[in-house]
Amino acid sequence: MNYFKNIKLENYRNFNNLELDFDQNCNVFFGNNGSGKTNILESISLFERGRGFRQDKINNLINFESKKDNFRIYSNFFHKHGDIIVSVFNERKKISLTKKIIVNGSSSKDSKEHFESLFSIIYFLPEMERLFVSSPSARRNFLDRLIFNSNKRYLKIVNDYKKNITERSRILKDYNSEIEWLNNIEKKIVELGIIIYKERLTYIEEINLALKRLDIAKKFNYKININLDDLLLNQCKNDTNVLFEEYIKTIKASREIDKLLGGSKVGPHKSDIVGYDIGKNININQFSTGQQKTVVLLIILAQCTMLISEQKISPIILFDEVCSHLDNNNRELLLHIIKTLDVQTFLTGTEKSFFSFLSTKTLYCNINEL
Amino acid sequence: MNYFKNIKLENYRNFNNLELDFDQNCNVFFGNNGSGKTNILESISLFERGRGFRQDKINNLINFESKKDNFRIYSNFFHKHGDIIVSVFNERKKISLTKKIIVNGSSSKDSKEHFESLFSIIYFLPEMERLFVSSPSARRNFLDRLIFNSNKRYLKIVNDYKKNITERSRILKDYNSEIEWLNNIEKKIVELGIIIYKERLTYIEEINLALKRLDIAKKFNYKININLDDLLLNQCKNDTNVLFEEYIKTIKASREIDKLLGGSKVGPHKSDIVGYDIGKNININQFSTGQQKTVVLLIILAQCTMLISEQKISPIILFDEVCSHLDNNNRELLLHIIKTLDVQTFLTGTEKSFFSFLSTKTLYCNINEL
Repeated sequence: MNYFKNIKLENYRNFNNLELDFDQNCNVFFGNNGSGKTNILESISLFERGRGFRQDKINNLINFESKKDNFRIYSNFFHKHGDIIVSVFNERKKISLTKKIIVNGSSSKDSKEHFESLFSIIYFLPEMERLFVSSPSARRNFLDRLIFNSNKRYLKIVNDYKKNITERSRILKDYNSEIEWLNNIEKKIVELGIIIYKERLTYIEEINLALKRLDIAKKFNYKININLDDLLLNQCKNDTNVLFEEYIKTIKASREIDKLLGGSKVGPHKSDIVGYDIGKNININQFSTGQQKTVVLLIILAQCTMLISEQKISPIILFDEVCSHLDNNNRELLLHIIKTLDVQTFLTGTEKSFFSFLSTKTLYCNINEL
Repeated sequence: MNYFKNIKLENYRNFNNLELDFDQNCNVFFGNNGSGKTNILESISLFERGRGFRQDKINNLINFESKKDNFRIYSNFFHKHGDIIVSVFNERKKISLTKKIIVNGSSSKDSKEHFESLFSIIYFLPEMERLFVSSPSARRNFLDRLIFNSNKRYLKIVNDYKKNITERSRILKDYNSEIEWLNNIEKKIVELGIIIYKERLTYIEEINLALKRLDIAKKFNYKININLDDLLLNQCKNDTNVLFEEYIKTIKASREIDKLLGGSKVGPHKSDIVGYDIGKNININQFSTGQQKTVVLLIILAQCTMLISEQKISPIILFDEVCSHLDNNNRELLLHIIKTLDVQTFLTGTEKSFFSFLSTKTLYCNINEL
């Protein structure tokens, strides 16, 4: 198992200078609202590709009360072949800021990719408690994150897909007559879109299987099944072979409306993810908030099991404010993730007493006193 | 002060038959996830106009495990001139279900309006913790609810406005040539839209004043100011006098795109609500989740003060899962609402111990044991 041994924050969010050592298993940050608990979790999430779990602008990561215009985060990452020293900071590129990562002193693609392959950050944020009644885009992002956890190239495909949609909008708006150009880009969109569809369908099949195995082994009494709900897939009756032609036809036919709206009317960016309790035969969106949280925790547990046993990737789990809606059921599930699986977890909450159900091996950190 | 003395639920959500007596001040429902805590709060919210705080289909209110196709909720409502007996139930109207209210045996408009004028339900739901980072529509709904609390006719105006927008879309789609009809309905939309703008601006002025008074009196150390952010208002530099012409001009000009999209490109249904901490000079969306909760609690406190002192309306507050993110600051604020103001409050949480900060006068109800 790989894990973060410590962290050092310089001029980052509300922290000027902060050094923390981590436990390889369970770490709890507690303290008042606004003390920076979530910021610490976010700083860990920045070691992964992207802009961290808040998806905030790089500019907002810099301590806004300081006069400096840089932040920097360091960590020693434990790996059996020797510690890896990583740092994340901002770099000015023309007028915008971008995030840079240095792995063992190198910024080469190879060393970054090696580092990325060693772990996968899974996060639970308060807004995910209501995942199944929030917007389809929240559910799509949740699913895409899970796929990215086990397939690091997936994010690039999704981004390429989005870029091509934007490019098509530009052509539709400015060069409507360039039919050849348009045909080409639409073909590219359809090809990428189909890869995304397939990745999602494959992943959903795998996670459903993992959830089923979990139910058989642990009897959490939730028989959860996830499904992809998509206009195009529904039309093709989930037959991905007829998908290509139908997709090309539909995207061509929607040129006029897409010209006005920007974007594209069909494709994986319009899918929704539907969850069912196949035991009780009801849609998860009819569950209570606490029960919906159970489902998300179950998915996280299934995801960890898959990552550890099949992909040999170390999950690192960030649980922001996980202690709300924690009845006996959810507590047992959470304990199972923290104790039984050999993973590094980070938890936040306003009070230490909320975590009394954890064993004494936990590392507690009072953020008010930093 | 007016309040609900009890409630009786028949065939409603997960309850077959449930009778509960309420305390006139503080009531706590605790129990496992899925036990029905939020359902009880929702049942109280159904005594107000509309479909309750979940905005769910009437069909979903009927106990889905039973074979009956009706639910019914009863309550005795305390009023100084004598108790009012109210009941809520579903009625079948052709193929759809509607909600009916009976007040002291009468379903007349007068008796319902009298009942409605005696109280106002204010609710805090878990998703409102992240109000300032969620969607503009969530913020608009939040603001519109607050206005409705003190002006019961407001909901009708908002609904009329929406109906006219839908009607216009239909005309644009089916009878594009009917210019006279279109002009008329656009005039109606603009008139209603301007009423909504004005109601919102007036309310925002009042709540900002109430928040300022609160800050001076109590020193909660948050100098909150709310603002309406709207394309049309911004163009008119917030001058509502030039608004009419600009509004009519813009809505006419967007006919072509509205025909394709349905709806309308401009108007109060596109506004956003922005909050600032004018003390620290930052946008509330940069606050931590717990601090954003503080802001919502502050607004609720200011709203209650306004309702009680200026409008003689009894606020009745539903706090669903309020105990998450409850540091000392938020606890003090919550206690202030519950103890200092003379209002009826209902709170839910998974465990009784979360409410130990409340005094012994609280009525506790273990939902697991019902």
